[in-house]
Amino acid sequence: MPNQKRIRDYGIKIGKLEPGFYNSITDVEGVTVGHVTLDEQDIQTGVTAILPHQGNVFKEKLVASSHVINGFGKSIGTIQINELGTLESPILLTNTLSIGTATDALIGYMLEQNPEIGRTTGTVNPVVCECNDMELNDIRKRSITEEHVIQALRQTSKEVMEGSVGAGRGMLCYSLKGGIGTSSRLMELNHGTYTMGVLVLSNFGTLSDLKVNGKAVGEELKRALPKAREEKDKGSIIVIVATDLPVTERQLNRIIKRSVTGLSRTGSTIANGSGEVVIGFSTATKIPHQKPSHLLSIPMIHVEDMDIAFRAVGEATEEAVLNSLVTATRVSGRDGNERLAFKDVVEEYNIELG
Amino acid sequence: MPNQKRIRDYGIKIGKLEPGFYNSITDVEGVTVGHVTLDEQDIQTGVTAILPHQGNVFKEKLVASSHVINGFGKSIGTIQINELGTLESPILLTNTLSIGTATDALIGYMLEQNPEIGRTTGTVNPVVCECNDMELNDIRKRSITEEHVIQALRQTSKEVMEGSVGAGRGMLCYSLKGGIGTSSRLMELNHGTYTMGVLVLSNFGTLSDLKVNGKAVGEELKRALPKAREEKDKGSIIVIVATDLPVTERQLNRIIKRSVTGLSRTGSTIANGSGEVVIGFSTATKIPHQKPSHLLSIPMIHVEDMDIAFRAVGEATEEAVLNSLVTATRVSGRDGNERLAFKDVVEEYNIELG
Amino acid sequence: MPNQKRIRDYGIKIGKLEPGFYNSITDVEGVTVGHVTLDEQDIQTGVTAILPHQGNVFKEKLVASSHVINGFGKSIGTIQINELGTLESPILLTNTLSIGTATDALIGYMLEQNPEIGRTTGTVNPVVCECNDMELNDIRKRSITEEHVIQALRQTSKEVMEGSVGAGRGMLCYSLKGGIGTSSRLMELNHGTYTMGVLVLSNFGTLSDLKVNGKAVGEELKRALPKAREEKDKGSIIVIVATDLPVTERQLNRIIKRSVTGLSRTGSTIANGSGEVVIGFSTATKIPHQKPSHLLSIPMIHVEDMDIAFRAVGEATEEAVLNSLVTATRVSGRDGNERLAFKDVVEEYNIELG
Amino acid sequence: MPNQKRIRDYGIKIGKLEPGFYNSITDVEGVTVGHVTLDEQDIQTGVTAILPHQGNVFKEKLVASSHVINGFGKSIGTIQINELGTLESPILLTNTLSIGTATDALIGYMLEQNPEIGRTTGTVNPVVCECNDMELNDIRKRSITEEHVIQALRQTSKEVMEGSVGAGRGMLCYSLKGGIGTSSRLMELNHGTYTMGVLVLSNFGTLSDLKVNGKAVGEELKRALPKAREEKDKGSIIVIVATDLPVTERQLNRIIKRSVTGLSRTGSTIANGSGEVVIGFSTATKIPHQKPSHLLSIPMIHVEDMDIAFRAVGEATEEAVLNSLVTATRVSGRDGNERLAFKDVVEEYNIELG
Repeated sequence: MPNQKRIRDYGIKIGKLEPGFYNSITDVEGVTVGHVTLDEQDIQTGVTAILPHQGNVFKEKLVASSHVINGFGKSIGTIQINELGTLESPILLTNTLSIGTATDALIGYMLEQNPEIGRTTGTVNPVVCECNDMELNDIRKRSITEEHVIQALRQTSKEVMEGSVGAGRGMLCYSLKGGIGTSSRLMELNHGTYTMGVLVLSNFGTLSDLKVNGKAVGEELKRALPKAREEKDKGSIIVIVATDLPVTERQLNRIIKRSVTGLSRTGSTIANGSGEVVIGFSTATKIPHQKPSHLLSIPMIHVEDMDIAFRAVGEATEEAVLNSLVTATRVSGRDGNERLAFKDVVEEYNIELG
Repeated sequence: MPNQKRIRDYGIKIGKLEPGFYNSITDVEGVTVGHVTLDEQDIQTGVTAILPHQGNVFKEKLVASSHVINGFGKSIGTIQINELGTLESPILLTNTLSIGTATDALIGYMLEQNPEIGRTTGTVNPVVCECNDMELNDIRKRSITEEHVIQALRQTSKEVMEGSVGAGRGMLCYSLKGGIGTSSRLMELNHGTYTMGVLVLSNFGTLSDLKVNGKAVGEELKRALPKAREEKDKGSIIVIVATDLPVTERQLNRIIKRSVTGLSRTGSTIANGSGEVVIGFSTATKIPHQKPSHLLSIPMIHVEDMDIAFRAVGEATEEAVLNSLVTATRVSGRDGNERLAFKDVVEEYNIELG
Repeated sequence: MPNQKRIRDYGIKIGKLEPGFYNSITDVEGVTVGHVTLDEQDIQTGVTAILPHQGNVFKEKLVASSHVINGFGKSIGTIQINELGTLESPILLTNTLSIGTATDALIGYMLEQNPEIGRTTGTVNPVVCECNDMELNDIRKRSITEEHVIQALRQTSKEVMEGSVGAGRGMLCYSLKGGIGTSSRLMELNHGTYTMGVLVLSNFGTLSDLKVNGKAVGEELKRALPKAREEKDKGSIIVIVATDLPVTERQLNRIIKRSVTGLSRTGSTIANGSGEVVIGFSTATKIPHQKPSHLLSIPMIHVEDMDIAFRAVGEATEEAVLNSLVTATRVSGRDGNERLAFKDVVEEYNIELG
Repeated sequence: MPNQKRIRDYGIKIGKLEPGFYNSITDVEGVTVGHVTLDEQDIQTGVTAILPHQGNVFKEKLVASSHVINGFGKSIGTIQINELGTLESPILLTNTLSIGTATDALIGYMLEQNPEIGRTTGTVNPVVCECNDMELNDIRKRSITEEHVIQALRQTSKEVMEGSVGAGRGMLCYSLKGGIGTSSRLMELNHGTYTMGVLVLSNFGTLSDLKVNGKAVGEELKRALPKAREEKDKGSIIVIVATDLPVTERQLNRIIKRSVTGLSRTGSTIANGSGEVVIGFSTATKIPHQKPSHLLSIPMIHVEDMDIAFRAVGEATEEAVLNSLVTATRVSGRDGNERLAFKDVVEEYNIELG
């Protein structure tokens, strides 16, 4: 992973399970992440692309599920995920008013890879999620172009930059800078060791609510930063969950719903404004686009094996949110608005995290 | 099947697919149905039991799903079906205010078969659905006893009596007598021939809305029965869908939702009062209660194979409703209320169905 | 209304309730509809815009609800409608791969009308629905531009052109030409007379399934058109429901779900491919974007008043689908594909509808 | 309130908002709670009844909503709450296998109060929720009788006993004794001060996961209790939310979903086994059973007023869970199984909570 100081580097260990090699969503075999970041005065925004596997996702779909924690948002693609239980495109994250452009660009990308779409086979379901970065970014400019999207899709890797990058460039977290964060957990079961990976785009929270591993760090910071205007919480987060655990889409849905436990433990009240959406996929099975002559077969864990997955997704979400916070750098943007970096204020005011 | 005149015996053929041997839910291997009927003055009610397979359903669960068309009802057991995607008990149908007793009796039946419940394993999820037969039955008496339930569970068979029997004893359909009806369809796919079976407990509809295979028979009947008080539609129906098609619970949910097409074609407006609930299960896979050491594997059809199942469930539901109507016999009950039998009025007034 | 021969002009009367003045969604006070149609060789597509009221919809939102009948589609905006129960933008219909462009254009339109978005207030939720017209239209070209969308939004009126226009230009219905259709019903209640309006974008159905007011016209047509290739049903329809009935979003949701009864009565099996989505709104209450100092108050009908609304939406949906079919004109498009018009074949083969 | 040592008496203050007078669900005007407790050897169980208001709930219904956090349970009555958005009966809590009896008893209670049910008006929707207390209670005996239920309904008061009482008698929480807990919060808005009350039946959690106001008290306890067998989490909780805030059922649903934030902050992973169900109601509006001649009108808060309600429900849920834990007394039951009381072990091992 890039050389960024993450929450574990502060001596904070979230939960009981061990993370994977990168402690990242990319610990799930085949998953890669790419960012394009725009950083020019009033334009503080970007795109983040997640490839669910390295093959042709349209031809080899994955079991997938979505869950709305708070629907004050306009992610596209979840209706079909819910109906068919499959993911057939990469996932994009971007700012709220660029969702049309990002959707169009992702459609273009899929058309290029799959010349049969609209000819011998039907349409394609792009998945694009968004948060509102208007505090630092001039969203009315809709600065994301098709080229930015394609670039993000083309330059993914297993090493995931976190913080004020990609779609996270202009996002806030607990009234400080937020953005991209990721984490993972290993799950040991009788029949194998599996990985749960989470990537978040954090854009929620009020400073005084922030808890770091249970400690009320937010209240301390609020006292330390006497002039800090405590923003009204806009309650927005996108959570992407990847796993290689063999699950049906119903099982996966149960798992991704539990991301809210980790979110809550960082102090979230799931505030009204903006949206909180979770998209999950499992790489354990590839569902062919073309109908084979025989029946398909989906491997799945027994219901008694679910608990470790529930624990894993909660822990990884909590740690991903904290990673998004502690890696983010200070950003100035629209109208001179500025957000401080957690890492700067923690150092300046000697806040003890553990 | 019992010697009852069914809708096909009137020369009416619903849809394009062929029915199974019995043209009944019991065409699905392993499914049996039993009735207990109470017929004493103000007590015109009963219980119907559906066994989803002939083994121990708690130990060998089936993939299952539920769908609420109109939730003005109080079926029990659907929350767990939706969460876990499995059925672990027989299904009971009875009258609205006997749901507590039927639930308790079904729990007792399950406890007897499974001494480990509440000892070395957890609890059990009984599935009981209800309609309101208060027009003909004194529901305040709650006449169903535990013994009635056990009897219905013990005397199931593949030969299903239809009409004014079991839970259907006091039910209405299109302002005439309704009750139990069943039908099935065969589905030919590359990898085999499968069966879709439907059983309904009909208790809905206003006479003038009734359509028989598209023909506005209800309007004709209304004109023929000048004194017929057209009841306000109470809009209640329970639909049980059984299939041996290998499906996940999401696929099954998509299928059972389509039962509404058949329902609508008989003339339903899905009126406000009382509930319309669908419960479906697939016998293709048995999910063990005890966790095995290895992964499970669920056979499933490809998405391109769904259409024939959608057609089958709509056709079988339409025909099951019509069967419930045409087999029902005239019943007098509470306060001298009486409902005419469709078969009697059709004959008396020379109504042409085809 | 434009001079088009509609289903009532064939002597067919659907249901029991009376239509409004235009027999159109525009019978609901304030609702207007506009089309832009593209008709150049391989490009047979368009945009249809529905204005829910003539004021600023962002500042004065309407109670709204969405319902997915079959989620094989990618409509945008429904997540927020479901969470907040309000509509704050016009509704667009277009072809499947132009959804990104249409979304972006609608965002631009909203930004222009509301300079405070992204400045002193948050983001905006555009509502765009789509069907797949690839049989007649080259969807890979994504021919819809921002200008087309703005034009459709700017030229709405109460007189609604139906058939092969706007988003309906390339759509199919029961293997013939489909597209835009509309209808309305009046609802008399104690406290007033209300209107239920429906507009559909039809793109579903297999010829032999078509029923006209119960009559199996599709089978007759199939016999008459011996060379007709019966297309695999792609099962797609968008249904827009407008009413001035005072309802909460839960009540509205119950109403719009009943559109499936009308759909089913035209012969639909709700096939697997493509999406069936319903969006409804009530003009009875305007919810201010800005928080007032006092409590809001929502007028609502009593639960006992729901039945007439359920009937109305079913009837209007059935008639709107038939109107989309009988008004559509023959279209040739991509690769020389051609779809016949219902009105032409009915005349040519002397098919009796009533 | 009864003289029990509650979490605030340990110097622990949860959240930022102030509790009401009783710090109990009964701070919501009209709400009362009653318990019947069975404590004889293998029988350690009970019933808890919540009256939502002191009038006739069937004749004057309340806006209500339900939410399933984890559906491994069999609560009855939620289907109708979801469809109609109203509560028309008291709410009962009891053990898992007594749900049939409790349902039947509640029906009897409603019939007695409302002689028109089943005569001139339809049926009634009883609401009964359950958890599995099999560790301490012999659930196979189904010891709850109709008399117990009626007694619980008849002896409700504003003073709520907590801990090992009523339905909480045999329940566990974080591997110690759990049961009934309650708490409330005041919400100041421009137009008035409102109350949010929560009552829980806790039966979930693994000792080492327990957090008290962020502090990992569970890990400390686990070290202190070296021989403690850490139970597998059965993940079950029932949360009842009462408020006098004027809300629609959609708004209420958004509120009650946020109870999960408080639950998560006590350490829950929302484990697989058993069910987690939330039922909420608002006393702000009474909806008449009989249709009036005029339109109804529902007062509702503006969307911008939601955040304080989200905060309130999370805080009150967290505190109610902790109250259920710290007030519970040691119980021995089935097969000599025994659960320690939190208050005893905290004292014995000098565990610092704050």
